[in-house]
Amino acid sequence: MGDIMNDVKVVFEPYGKRVKASVGELVFSIAEKAGVAIRSECGGRGVCGKCKVIILDQNAISKLSDIEMNHLTSSEIISGYRLACQTRVLKNVVVAVPPESIMQPPKLMILGFERDVKLSPVVRKLHLLLPEPTLSDIRPDFERLLESAQERFKDFGGLDIDYDVLKMLPEILRRSHWDITLVMWDRRIIGVEPGDTSDRIFGLALDIGTSKIVGHLVDLKSGRTIAVASIENPQAVYGEDIITRITHASKGDANLKELQRLAVDGINKVLHEVCENSGVDPFNVYEVMIVGNTAMHHFFFGIQPKYVAQSPYVPALRKAVSVKAKDLGVDAYPCGIVTSLPIVAGFVGADAVADVIATGMHELSENSILIDIGTNTEVFVGNRDYLLCCSCASGPAFEGAHIKHGMRAVTGAIEKVHIDNNFDVKYETIGGVKPLGVCGSAVIDVIAEMFKHGIIDANGRINSQIESPRIRASNEGLEFVIAWKDETATGREITVTQKDIREFQLAKAAIYSACSILMKKRGLSEEKIDFLFIAGAFGNYINPENAKVIGLIPDVTSEKIRFVGNTAVAGAKMALISKEMRNAAEQLVEKIRYHELAADPNFNQEFINALNIPHRFIGRFPSIRKHLKSFR
Amino acid sequence: MGDIMNDVKVVFEPYGKRVKASVGELVFSIAEKAGVAIRSECGGRGVCGKCKVIILDQNAISKLSDIEMNHLTSSEIISGYRLACQTRVLKNVVVAVPPESIMQPPKLMILGFERDVKLSPVVRKLHLLLPEPTLSDIRPDFERLLESAQERFKDFGGLDIDYDVLKMLPEILRRSHWDITLVMWDRRIIGVEPGDTSDRIFGLALDIGTSKIVGHLVDLKSGRTIAVASIENPQAVYGEDIITRITHASKGDANLKELQRLAVDGINKVLHEVCENSGVDPFNVYEVMIVGNTAMHHFFFGIQPKYVAQSPYVPALRKAVSVKAKDLGVDAYPCGIVTSLPIVAGFVGADAVADVIATGMHELSENSILIDIGTNTEVFVGNRDYLLCCSCASGPAFEGAHIKHGMRAVTGAIEKVHIDNNFDVKYETIGGVKPLGVCGSAVIDVIAEMFKHGIIDANGRINSQIESPRIRASNEGLEFVIAWKDETATGREITVTQKDIREFQLAKAAIYSACSILMKKRGLSEEKIDFLFIAGAFGNYINPENAKVIGLIPDVTSEKIRFVGNTAVAGAKMALISKEMRNAAEQLVEKIRYHELAADPNFNQEFINALNIPHRFIGRFPSIRKHLKSFR
Ligand code: FES
Ligand code: FES
Repeated sequence: MGDIMNDVKVVFEPYGKRVKASVGELVFSIAEKAGVAIRSECGGRGVCGKCKVIILDQNAISKLSDIEMNHLTSSEIISGYRLACQTRVLKNVVVAVPPESIMQPPKLMILGFERDVKLSPVVRKLHLLLPEPTLSDIRPDFERLLESAQERFKDFGGLDIDYDVLKMLPEILRRSHWDITLVMWDRRIIGVEPGDTSDRIFGLALDIGTSKIVGHLVDLKSGRTIAVASIENPQAVYGEDIITRITHASKGDANLKELQRLAVDGINKVLHEVCENSGVDPFNVYEVMIVGNTAMHHFFFGIQPKYVAQSPYVPALRKAVSVKAKDLGVDAYPCGIVTSLPIVAGFVGADAVADVIATGMHELSENSILIDIGTNTEVFVGNRDYLLCCSCASGPAFEGAHIKHGMRAVTGAIEKVHIDNNFDVKYETIGGVKPLGVCGSAVIDVIAEMFKHGIIDANGRINSQIESPRIRASNEGLEFVIAWKDETATGREITVTQKDIREFQLAKAAIYSACSILMKKRGLSEEKIDFLFIAGAFGNYINPENAKVIGLIPDVTSEKIRFVGNTAVAGAKMALISKEMRNAAEQLVEKIRYHELAADPNFNQEFINALNIPHRFIGRFPSIRKHLKSFR
Repeated sequence: MGDIMNDVKVVFEPYGKRVKASVGELVFSIAEKAGVAIRSECGGRGVCGKCKVIILDQNAISKLSDIEMNHLTSSEIISGYRLACQTRVLKNVVVAVPPESIMQPPKLMILGFERDVKLSPVVRKLHLLLPEPTLSDIRPDFERLLESAQERFKDFGGLDIDYDVLKMLPEILRRSHWDITLVMWDRRIIGVEPGDTSDRIFGLALDIGTSKIVGHLVDLKSGRTIAVASIENPQAVYGEDIITRITHASKGDANLKELQRLAVDGINKVLHEVCENSGVDPFNVYEVMIVGNTAMHHFFFGIQPKYVAQSPYVPALRKAVSVKAKDLGVDAYPCGIVTSLPIVAGFVGADAVADVIATGMHELSENSILIDIGTNTEVFVGNRDYLLCCSCASGPAFEGAHIKHGMRAVTGAIEKVHIDNNFDVKYETIGGVKPLGVCGSAVIDVIAEMFKHGIIDANGRINSQIESPRIRASNEGLEFVIAWKDETATGREITVTQKDIREFQLAKAAIYSACSILMKKRGLSEEKIDFLFIAGAFGNYINPENAKVIGLIPDVTSEKIRFVGNTAVAGAKMALISKEMRNAAEQLVEKIRYHELAADPNFNQEFINALNIPHRFIGRFPSIRKHLKSFR
């Protein structure tokens, strides 16, 4: 009775979603329970300031807090802006979620880069008609099955059988009148199905990213992807960045379990979506191949990830993990197997291994560089005989975080920018809609264009002497206006600030230094590099010239550069359909040399030299001399 | 409220146990819930008549039923005797359980026959001090562990790790400051324990019998049994005989699960008892080796056993089953392994395989016969090069069932009988107490002695012409009185009836024919047999001369005969402490030839010939000619 009296109604607009809540509950939690995704990068701790909502009836909610005052401008406060994670409901209330706070499904290169591989999935099916037992043939059920299978395929001797399948075996064989299909994972029988089901055999390749989970449903007969889906990682309610989540998980087993559950929930959502879209029964999905960074991998398997985030950044294991679907709570075939690719190190996870597999650089005689740009950037250098890798903290700038108007590469993000000689700006947004902010690829463009036009110098300093309304002072220092108020979806200007540029310089210096140090270790100059693969979720593509102008990547000729998109899921798919690829991955992590930059005595100097645009030693970037001229 | 009004109080004497029950509940069920074990051989179906109780206040209970009238004598009815499974309580009542209805823990040869085997358990421990990770040694936890183990033992490369252990690995390693003990089962890491625990490593050998569960707790460092325990199989509430239980299980998955649960409960009771008695922590019990007949094996693993009981009597599998303790609900170390010995056929189970292992007949160059007498009797003939086996239905007579005053070999059972020339009887009881009934070994003695003294003829017919008060007519025909009223614990005479003798003839004919057919198949005469092993729960020993007199076993010289007691648990223990024994068992079931008597065209004639005492062809029993003379 008491509960009913303390209930209030909350309506979320523009969704028209009505839910009940208790008096005193946070808008942020109510939204989460209602399935209304509100942006957040701090998990509701009042730190990121991204969870803005508009509430007109201020009497229906708690008073404005100091935290909110720090994050909101006075004009926002007057307009009814509040932080969802700081505001409690007191009465029935309408909460409007403004466009910039809506967590949108990112527009992704979910198909990624893909090479052709020979089809040799670990899951196989075999239709068998067994002889019925008689008094003169009293072989036990399992041995009868084995011997029939072995008559067909020599290598089927000595198979093992899953205990859950064994328990059902006598009944299944008799109910199906000895006409069955064997399902095998490697050398283990994981299923015995009545009749001939050999045409229904599927697998799911999954990339569990910090921000999103991407899945490909693959027909294991053809090796073809038949459905794809992608969702926000539900763990984001505990913070968008991984360190916040690790901190949460490190506080207790229950927290870790909750984060694991959220990852599993996310995977199940992707699984159900791809199955619905393709008409496939989830029980015919016999293997799920997952990749993800080391922390996500640990979260998903319920392994404490905190030591991955503490020096010396040691993971729980390197080799692939394989667990029964039902033991993890994954809704695929219960005796099916969820398996991961192996990992290299705390900061070089299964997703990075998938990248390598996907590009095939480990099979090439030529030298390649692979850069997977993210909050953490992994760099691989080498060829089929020798591979070196390292990882560097490049911050979330490329994914739009820690940038004043930054956002991920989703609808509404400016993705390309061109500045002309009058300092006028042309831009394109993802989805062709009014802009909400800038994503990573656009920031690369802006900074490169600003540098080419002398708006910033080699130190990244904005030249206050240039006369243009786009260059102006704010209370955070100088900034450059990309889009004016009336052009944007938010009604506020989109700018790049001096602080944003500094943030970017740190990021690109880290990435370039990582490449440079590995190249030196291998004795490779830019001319000896035959391929430079760039992977990451910074946007649909990077302008390679601009990437070189800002000194993000080594100065190789542009035709050697390949944007490979979401290679992690492509690599996962290859491993799903090919046992050889899986073995190659295991061999890879055994032989690859991980170079710990934190322990490299040259890294600091390299990094400092790389802070300049493009670099303190301009000789490293001969191809962009022409732009330097236009500046000087 | 209603429930309380319908409650009655029931007191069980001589225990003084008071419980609540509902009006209309069966005394049998109330007793079961109260933990008062009442004898039953039919699971409460009113068939066996063994569940007698005494209730003086007939107004407090339901009326005498027709079923009860068929089982109870009029003097019993006058004394207040009732069948617990047919009597419902109406009011508060006192129920007395007479001595003959008390289900007693059987006196067993729980130590059994045991040979010395080389200690090589599958479970091993290894104490390790791992180097701590540093920035220059960033090997993952698992690989660090593996490599340290491999430095100590070459064969520790490529070990697998249990997923539950993996999940805990980072925390355990750090909390224990890298000082740990590895627990391995075969090539799988099943535990990582802080500090040096290598002196605490135990296993449990279990024989899951139809009527009892016997366990040996074994120290795997020394191979020594340190505690033994035995309990009634809790499945007996669903019938003492296995067919009743299989019928119950065949009716639905829930029934099968319930029988599995009861078996697991029983095992846990034995486990806790041996651990308590020896001060061992059940979590230091890393492996449980179980043996049992094929139906018990299937029950325990939750596999539908009904096809084992239907022609052609096919089991679910032959090879050993290994399941994680926690997946079965066994209270040992959760990631420990419960494993079975392999089985040969529907009627030659893991217990029979254990028998062979225990006797070592599969290693001998000499020829042996092994007879494991039970409701179902298994016979093995052969040597290390060749083994034949078969199974025959010998009925429960040897275990005391289907015999008027039969009982199992527990305290109060007459176990030895001698008849002198005046037809006077001398007997010994187990425990030296007043007799309650006769067990299998005593019936062998009685029949042999009766035959030697001409009380029965070669057809087993009682000679009514003999003048002795011990030979008398009853309403079931002639009977021989072994103990008079005033000598017994029940106050009633203990007799062997003509019907009992017939029952015994059927049993011994089946067993002898099985031996004879296998010997013929191997071309072995009695002289070529070097050992005759007799196993079974018919009593502490059989008089070998008497066994030959009645024609139960082939006429080999008595010094070749070995009574090996409960060899099943001895074989289980050998397999527990020796990987070689386990491998031998796997090889055994691969190479052994199972001979199906049901399909043997000679069996019927052999059986009919063997019904005579000792046999239609007296030439087969030359050693007992002397007794024949005294008769003629
Ligand atoms: S401040 Fe509210 S979510 Fe970060
Ligand atoms: S008659 Fe009551 S238990 Fe058998």
